[in-house]
Amino acid sequence: MEVDEVVCLPRLSRVAVCGGTHGNELSGVYLVRELLKAEKKVRKKEEEEEEPLSVQMVLSNPRAMQQCRRYIDTDLNRCFTHATLNGSTSDSDPYEMIRSRELNAMLGPKGSPKAVDLVCDLHNTTANMGLCLIAYSDCDWICLHIFRHLQRQMPDIPLRYIHFDVSSKESYSLDSVGKHGFAMEIGPQPHGVVRSNIYTAMKVGVQHVLDWVRFFNSGTIFEGGFVDVFTMVKHIDYPRDSETHNITAAIHPQLQDRDFCLLHPEDALFQTFSGETLRYKGNEPLYPFFVNECAYYEKGIALSLARKRHVMIPFLVFKG
Amino acid sequence: MEVDEVVCLPRLSRVAVCGGTHGNELSGVYLVRELLKAEKKVRKKEEEEEEPLSVQMVLSNPRAMQQCRRYIDTDLNRCFTHATLNGSTSDSDPYEMIRSRELNAMLGPKGSPKAVDLVCDLHNTTANMGLCLIAYSDCDWICLHIFRHLQRQMPDIPLRYIHFDVSSKESYSLDSVGKHGFAMEIGPQPHGVVRSNIYTAMKVGVQHVLDWVRFFNSGTIFEGGFVDVFTMVKHIDYPRDSETHNITAAIHPQLQDRDFCLLHPEDALFQTFSGETLRYKGNEPLYPFFVNECAYYEKGIALSLARKRHVMIPFLVFKG
Repeated sequence: MEVDEVVCLPRLSRVAVCGGTHGNELSGVYLVRELLKAEKKVRKKEEEEEEPLSVQMVLSNPRAMQQCRRYIDTDLNRCFTHATLNGSTSDSDPYEMIRSRELNAMLGPKGSPKAVDLVCDLHNTTANMGLCLIAYSDCDWICLHIFRHLQRQMPDIPLRYIHFDVSSKESYSLDSVGKHGFAMEIGPQPHGVVRSNIYTAMKVGVQHVLDWVRFFNSGTIFEGGFVDVFTMVKHIDYPRDSETHNITAAIHPQLQDRDFCLLHPEDALFQTFSGETLRYKGNEPLYPFFVNECAYYEKGIALSLARKRHVMIPFLVFKG
Repeated sequence: MEVDEVVCLPRLSRVAVCGGTHGNELSGVYLVRELLKAEKKVRKKEEEEEEPLSVQMVLSNPRAMQQCRRYIDTDLNRCFTHATLNGSTSDSDPYEMIRSRELNAMLGPKGSPKAVDLVCDLHNTTANMGLCLIAYSDCDWICLHIFRHLQRQMPDIPLRYIHFDVSSKESYSLDSVGKHGFAMEIGPQPHGVVRSNIYTAMKVGVQHVLDWVRFFNSGTIFEGGFVDVFTMVKHIDYPRDSETHNITAAIHPQLQDRDFCLLHPEDALFQTFSGETLRYKGNEPLYPFFVNECAYYEKGIALSLARKRHVMIPFLVFKG
């Protein structure tokens, strides 16, 4: 591919902005509620103006939100695999499995022409990650151009693009239901808490995503160029007691809050509860992220590691 | 009272250090587990040396810890009132009510000569509060001398003494079961997460508390002097929607993380989710604390406000 190659893609007519997929990640919960309120107020005006873009606001897991928990029975954001969405159903299915099928009916079906064009699913993390777009593709030009737009429009917050190299069939998160999609992950914010600065960053981020879609739909030509993509390589678990499975160490103070700062072999990784330093034994420097994310203790992930690549993105234009 | 007055108090023979009273406040959970492990190792040595101080390590709410939640049925740390501990019991009592009676039997009975001499109950907060001792008395010389000892020994972390002016009968928290007692509250740390720096501060803090008790028991004379005491004046709730009761604003960015920085009338207090600034309408400057504590959303507390006073503490010595 040449850097001046032009890619033409169809109009994005339907966008979904989802919050509360994890019920205790409060920026998205309160932002979607706020957008729903605002929508009510402007609905009449919009009908007059015939806005060609349909933006659907979704509160994904209302029961978990009500209890301010990540989930009721199982993590909703792992329920959107092809197998789970299309498997046989029963009355004893976990709540989130039932809910994932409802959301798939509403925004999908996943993989079909009927699916919404873009899903932006809002998340918070306790890790010091700034604003990240997380997607399953490193060549989805819509997602990558949106990312570059956010980077340019929001110079005051660190922005990264994380790529999980998982097939469409195996992809498990809500954003995989759309033709294009990403999670917008912002931190640090404790779960169950809303911090004004994080809420505002998310609000501004979503506004810029929707702006970009409107620019695209109205025929703007977006220049090609390069962006950095962090591709997930592996997860590292906490050291654990072999009998109780309890963790025996915390993230080392020298690593805590240093997401996306290159971790070298022999750098400090954990500090045990008795005070010992444990070091990174990998054989190549990698970029840590999701460092000390609250919800990943139970998943056995203390941090994830990524390789950074320079990805060329082509000129992009709406194909009328 | 004169500043050179000497107060004599009896030996502190039994101390309890409690963690996991809130099951998702992880520094205390992992610290007590670590101390229990260390205790096993040194038990034999101690028996030989006949240590005169008995230190009991307690995991207060094991079921909540196991689920990494604050509580199962109700907040354990509100179950230690005279009424709750001594009321009639039934099979349908909430788990924490049953557990509070077990703990009262183990460490109390509250208000009786049998109660342990000192309870140090370990807590974390999402608020930027540094290390606080929280007690029901502003004239418990044991607690205040321990506080001053910690201040001197730990110059790198901000230390404050918070006083809740509640009678012994109405006092509701686990530390009220001892003859003397306080909560050691350290933040900021998200609930469900352990941060190495916060864990270490707690570990060092507990060590200094126990050191002080041993100094006291061995006849050290502690000098009188002055300490600052923050007495709680009132709580302020979030603005809420009158129908849904959902909050409609977050702590203002200018107030977030500024616990114990004087809040003046007309200072920014909240930022609504639509972007408006709401101001503090009190008529005297007060000190905010527990600013944006996760667990207090459900209690209707966005922050608490305190008045600062200079309290004289007398010389203190063990009465043989």
